[in-house]
Amino acid sequence: MNKLIELIENAKNIAITGHVSPDGDCTGSTLGLYNYITENFEDKNVKVCLEKPSMKFSFMNGFELISEDPFMEADLLVSLDASDRERLGSRGVMLESAAQSICIDHHITNTKFAKFNIVEDFRSSTCELLYTLLDSDKVSVETAKCLYTGIVHDSGVFKYQSTTKETMDIAGELISKGFDFTKIIDDTYFKKDFNASKLLGLVLTNAKLEFDGKCCYGVLDYDTWSKYISDKKKMDGIIDNLRNIDGVEIALFMYETAKDEYKVSLRSINKNVSSIAAALGGGGHIRAAGATVYGKADEILKNTLLPMIEKELNG
Amino acid sequence: MNKLIELIENAKNIAITGHVSPDGDCTGSTLGLYNYITENFEDKNVKVCLEKPSMKFSFMNGFELISEDPFMEADLLVSLDASDRERLGSRGVMLESAAQSICIDHHITNTKFAKFNIVEDFRSSTCELLYTLLDSDKVSVETAKCLYTGIVHDSGVFKYQSTTKETMDIAGELISKGFDFTKIIDDTYFKKDFNASKLLGLVLTNAKLEFDGKCCYGVLDYDTWSKYISDKKKMDGIIDNLRNIDGVEIALFMYETAKDEYKVSLRSINKNVSSIAAALGGGGHIRAAGATVYGKADEILKNTLLPMIEKELNG
Repeated sequence: MNKLIELIENAKNIAITGHVSPDGDCTGSTLGLYNYITENFEDKNVKVCLEKPSMKFSFMNGFELISEDPFMEADLLVSLDASDRERLGSRGVMLESAAQSICIDHHITNTKFAKFNIVEDFRSSTCELLYTLLDSDKVSVETAKCLYTGIVHDSGVFKYQSTTKETMDIAGELISKGFDFTKIIDDTYFKKDFNASKLLGLVLTNAKLEFDGKCCYGVLDYDTWSKYISDKKKMDGIIDNLRNIDGVEIALFMYETAKDEYKVSLRSINKNVSSIAAALGGGGHIRAAGATVYGKADEILKNTLLPMIEKELNG
Repeated sequence: MNKLIELIENAKNIAITGHVSPDGDCTGSTLGLYNYITENFEDKNVKVCLEKPSMKFSFMNGFELISEDPFMEADLLVSLDASDRERLGSRGVMLESAAQSICIDHHITNTKFAKFNIVEDFRSSTCELLYTLLDSDKVSVETAKCLYTGIVHDSGVFKYQSTTKETMDIAGELISKGFDFTKIIDDTYFKKDFNASKLLGLVLTNAKLEFDGKCCYGVLDYDTWSKYISDKKKMDGIIDNLRNIDGVEIALFMYETAKDEYKVSLRSINKNVSSIAAALGGGGHIRAAGATVYGKADEILKNTLLPMIEKELNG
């Protein structure tokens, strides 16, 4: 028996939490564990304490019971998919109020902030890791739907390098429980807001190629994008569409966040864009990075961004 | 030992073929088998006889050796991913010229046109079925790349309902051989031509919603799309982008193929669009269908297509 199950068995009041701005893996792992406990352990008082996730995850059983408030009477806190205490937001206080705490996570930056910590950074997702801690025979279809969703989101639908044979095996076991996984992938991963889709259309139509087609970039000023959407998060997928153009090695998307202030996103196939972002005071990963820049878009492109990209392409 | 391996062992000259307009599954299964035979059987003379596939599949070992011509000296013909003789195009003559023939396929409409037939319509792909006929220990990384590509393409990257636990297990075994599967998915499945991407942008920007957002449609006249692309196939993915808009139950895309002649594509989430296509003299599946219509786009939409869609939405 692993530590998670031992702690659950010995607890009466259990708080499950995760990081602020919960994504698919955080929502799936917290609600997946919630369903697993309520279905397999008698007389436990379980609450999921989390910022309200996107309504697209409302198909998960228990979604409507999620509370933003800490569960101060919990004697066990289970933190899922959070790399450090700050990421728990106001739910962090439960680390002191609960007698026991366990952190289950797959981020390489995890600080092991709980009393017990199960951190495996080679996992595609916290949902994948969580599944390995559960008795697979006791995973219901409702739990399976939650865990599958988290794996799908954090693996980019089985595409990111973090996907392993075990990721595929586990996802296969989960879908064999029987549910409409096509609908989960479409509804939670690929679906787009109509206006966000129009905005993507505008960026694609006006995108430009540079350096023999090796760089593709798109720019949006504040007035243009705010006509379509109010939530900047809806622009998240645009950069991937620019990166997925034949021959492109570095994609750049920048949008105006305030007068003469631009958020810059960079993606690459093989080149290092984190060094470009870092030189601009930003950061990120080798293939995905970003920064904030100031000035007129045309001038920033001509004098700063495009020359840096050209240098990286030729490097 | 299964019939495929038995036939290969007893043959000297082996022709591998597949259907006209070879897609990912056809290209992957034919080249996958080609690699498997050349690596594991001594002294076989193997040729892949196939229409030239898209260059995006040229990473597969043996790609440059593909010949469109029949291999008339073959004593064994292996047909992969073709549902009937006509689908082999001019390679069909090998059915008579070869002493033995075997058909391996996953289409429900397969006519079992070879001497031996292994047809399993519950398989996601011919590549998945083919893998079950091979000795997994003898599948090299080159063969694995081919088979994985076919599974990815015919399963819609593990999304279509045809994906099963076994599909996931096999894809997991294949990636454990070690290759850049992220690159295969991006390069062969998601990548878009720059001009096709601009055209998609134009359609998304001008798309319209009807019936409380349950129908989304886009229209392109001949002059508009032909400014961007010459190959109509590059419009293939546009309809999926319209279907993937929040709240949309039926998506419609129509483009002008000749003066006042439009090709209509229909996609649905749960509704039956094949009945609409059939009423227009077309056909297809419940969730994906198409037809050709004649007249002015505005009038066809107002008088025919939108009323039919409204009826189906309310049905």
